[in-house]
Amino acid sequence: MSEQVLLYLKKNRSYFLKRLFKFLEIPSISTDSDYKEDMEKAADFIVTYLQEIGFDSAEKQSTNNHPLVYGEYNSAGKDAPTVLFYGHYDVQPADPMELWHSDPFQPEIRDGRLYARGASDDKGQVFMHLAVFEAFLKTEGKLPVNVKVCIEGEEEIGSENLYNILQEYREQFTADFAVISDSGMVAKNQPTILYGLKGFTGLEITVKGPDHDLHSGMYGGAIRNPIMALSHILSSMKNEEEFITVDGFYDGVEPLSIEERKMMAAVPSEDYAKSSGVNQTVSEKGYTPVEHTMGRPTFEVNGIFGGYQGEGTKTIIPSSATAKITCRLVPGQDPEIVQQLLEDHIYKVAPSGVEVHVEKEKLSAKAYKVEPDHPLIKKAAEAYTKAFQAETVYVRMGGSIPVVEWIESIYGIPIVLLGFGTPEDRLHAPNESFPLDSFDKGMETIVYYWNSVGN
Amino acid sequence: MSEQVLLYLKKNRSYFLKRLFKFLEIPSISTDSDYKEDMEKAADFIVTYLQEIGFDSAEKQSTNNHPLVYGEYNSAGKDAPTVLFYGHYDVQPADPMELWHSDPFQPEIRDGRLYARGASDDKGQVFMHLAVFEAFLKTEGKLPVNVKVCIEGEEEIGSENLYNILQEYREQFTADFAVISDSGMVAKNQPTILYGLKGFTGLEITVKGPDHDLHSGMYGGAIRNPIMALSHILSSMKNEEEFITVDGFYDGVEPLSIEERKMMAAVPSEDYAKSSGVNQTVSEKGYTPVEHTMGRPTFEVNGIFGGYQGEGTKTIIPSSATAKITCRLVPGQDPEIVQQLLEDHIYKVAPSGVEVHVEKEKLSAKAYKVEPDHPLIKKAAEAYTKAFQAETVYVRMGGSIPVVEWIESIYGIPIVLLGFGTPEDRLHAPNESFPLDSFDKGMETIVYYWNSVGN
Repeated sequence: MSEQVLLYLKKNRSYFLKRLFKFLEIPSISTDSDYKEDMEKAADFIVTYLQEIGFDSAEKQSTNNHPLVYGEYNSAGKDAPTVLFYGHYDVQPADPMELWHSDPFQPEIRDGRLYARGASDDKGQVFMHLAVFEAFLKTEGKLPVNVKVCIEGEEEIGSENLYNILQEYREQFTADFAVISDSGMVAKNQPTILYGLKGFTGLEITVKGPDHDLHSGMYGGAIRNPIMALSHILSSMKNEEEFITVDGFYDGVEPLSIEERKMMAAVPSEDYAKSSGVNQTVSEKGYTPVEHTMGRPTFEVNGIFGGYQGEGTKTIIPSSATAKITCRLVPGQDPEIVQQLLEDHIYKVAPSGVEVHVEKEKLSAKAYKVEPDHPLIKKAAEAYTKAFQAETVYVRMGGSIPVVEWIESIYGIPIVLLGFGTPEDRLHAPNESFPLDSFDKGMETIVYYWNSVGN
Repeated sequence: MSEQVLLYLKKNRSYFLKRLFKFLEIPSISTDSDYKEDMEKAADFIVTYLQEIGFDSAEKQSTNNHPLVYGEYNSAGKDAPTVLFYGHYDVQPADPMELWHSDPFQPEIRDGRLYARGASDDKGQVFMHLAVFEAFLKTEGKLPVNVKVCIEGEEEIGSENLYNILQEYREQFTADFAVISDSGMVAKNQPTILYGLKGFTGLEITVKGPDHDLHSGMYGGAIRNPIMALSHILSSMKNEEEFITVDGFYDGVEPLSIEERKMMAAVPSEDYAKSSGVNQTVSEKGYTPVEHTMGRPTFEVNGIFGGYQGEGTKTIIPSSATAKITCRLVPGQDPEIVQQLLEDHIYKVAPSGVEVHVEKEKLSAKAYKVEPDHPLIKKAAEAYTKAFQAETVYVRMGGSIPVVEWIESIYGIPIVLLGFGTPEDRLHAPNESFPLDSFDKGMETIVYYWNSVGN
């Protein structure tokens, strides 16, 4: 019963790619207010799509920042389950621009991959669902499931408004289960069920020194250097054995069981060093890189700046220095408590002669784990295996999808992470891409899955 | 016998200011190759000036980078001494631009101060000498001394070519003594003889991690963070007691004598905390801020950058991080040896999983000290006192003027540092300025000095 639908996807492949290109061409960068209009355009793209293919409703719902796209399809019948389909249309900034081999917002196909910001995270994967909805409606005249579409524009900035919306409009979003395609597989063509995700918290440290840049000859020796002060603070937070040295940081961390460590060792995992171009991996003492990435909390400085950054030399004591920090958390850690521990630590170790300001990242998320043997999860594994012709593996991953934890805590429904990304996709980095192959097989998986859960 | 000259300076004050404005309007930023043409314009300004007022010769001499202005006045007579007058027409970059209250290259007078990049360092002070030369030639028809003018365009980038030029063309630059006005007084209207300057060395550290920015969720826990690695390196180089923790760094440092420490304590010194806007000063354990600034070596991080620096959050492990470092050295330290010690230290402490590159600053300088009771120094002190109506004090300062050390080592002649800057001038920073008052009294000092040494 899936043949017609699959045939439609196959026959119209070039039309679908062209339409996906239009979606990717919109620079929907949520973190930068310069792109506010483009955010509206990207949201409109989805609304128009859903309206055209015959959803019962589709609209932009305004938030305090970027709009949420909401649509409903209610004609699968009363016996069919209702699925909440979540995705996001916003993307990460494209910089450093000079490292892109093609324009991040002019999609280009090279060697079987589609290069564009958002090709994998998450516009490409959202589009696959839109195409499958179209294929069902254009061939069978109906979808096997009732659908509530919820595509937000603030995932890359911490889903600032979604939490409140999900809490406030419970009726609107109520469903039997949720499906999210915003994750990846452990290797290309290796179907992967994600049964665990990390939590998330973050903050920004600004060290303020003199009220203007000082001549290092006239003031050097009398004034605390803000960059050096920041370096002392940062290096007091994680040691060279990749252990986070903030009091209480590991309190309550759920230990990795022997069984889980065995399972992690068995996953056909990518070669982290090779795919990132370093000469060797590192990880917390006592844990392998796979174990640390999947199952242990992390602490990363995402950016740092202060003083003179141009060509040549400028002999100053700079007036300030700033670092951006985010942590990925595991089950057993409360993001707000961890954030407070980080802040307390920073103020405690701040040296004299400078003022230290901490700005807490507003939204955070708890880590998430689901039972791998839930029937909806099993059916997803079967759909994957059928489309990709390979056994499905079960893993935890280091990424954070705050909405997963929120849907679970507010609605208490199962969440199926039906991701199709590959380790080579370069998410958040220059030259993000997505394999065309995975585009085809991914849509096939989705078709099988809707048919399977619809019955 | 100075009256006529002084009267000329007084009567033509507004003409001189207008002409100085023209000089300051040229953005002669030597470190940034975008300003190459402006560097030529600034050099032309001086050449034209010297030609117009009747110097025997004046020309631009090409170097491997920015031209050197060279001019000669030989008509003071065989009995008159020959002075090598050194200055520089290049300036520091003006950024951060948004902190300037007026355009750095549109000079503006506010509350008795002239605001412009280079107003004090060093175009303003060079111009005072040009004006005094003019005043002598237009009134008395001659200068009391023979002069070799040497105004370079690379002081702010380490005087890249001057050292070789001074060595190669010894005959050209041979003189009885040298005069340099590129320094300041310890307080406005407090005549100051600088009898010691610091040396200088520097380097840039780049920590290279992954070959592209990585998703912190997918790679966090497996890949060394370059910013964190850089923080560990930096904080291993200077501790929180402002002690430089690089092996051998203090080897050979000439200790401060009790006498010198007494003299330093007696100098009417500025309030470092107040003038820089910090809540407290810091200094090396065992030394006061004045002692550290004048007589102990320093280590400053002048700039740092890596990863995401925009608005909001970007959850990456950045591909690299860079820090710019310069040190100010004291007598007894060899800048090249110190630079090597710094490099060795950096490679020794560099963590695994990243590649660390050190780029050494090409030119450096030894510290300099002169006997405060040399007759040419004494005459400078008298000229200062006569013009400013205040006793002259003798100090060492934290700044470095590489050319001072070179002139001494190559030519073995006395160097008189006839500086007129004030602690409020904000050298190298936004809103650089120079008091008009010091402009007038400084020119008066120069007139007295030429007359005194010419006889």
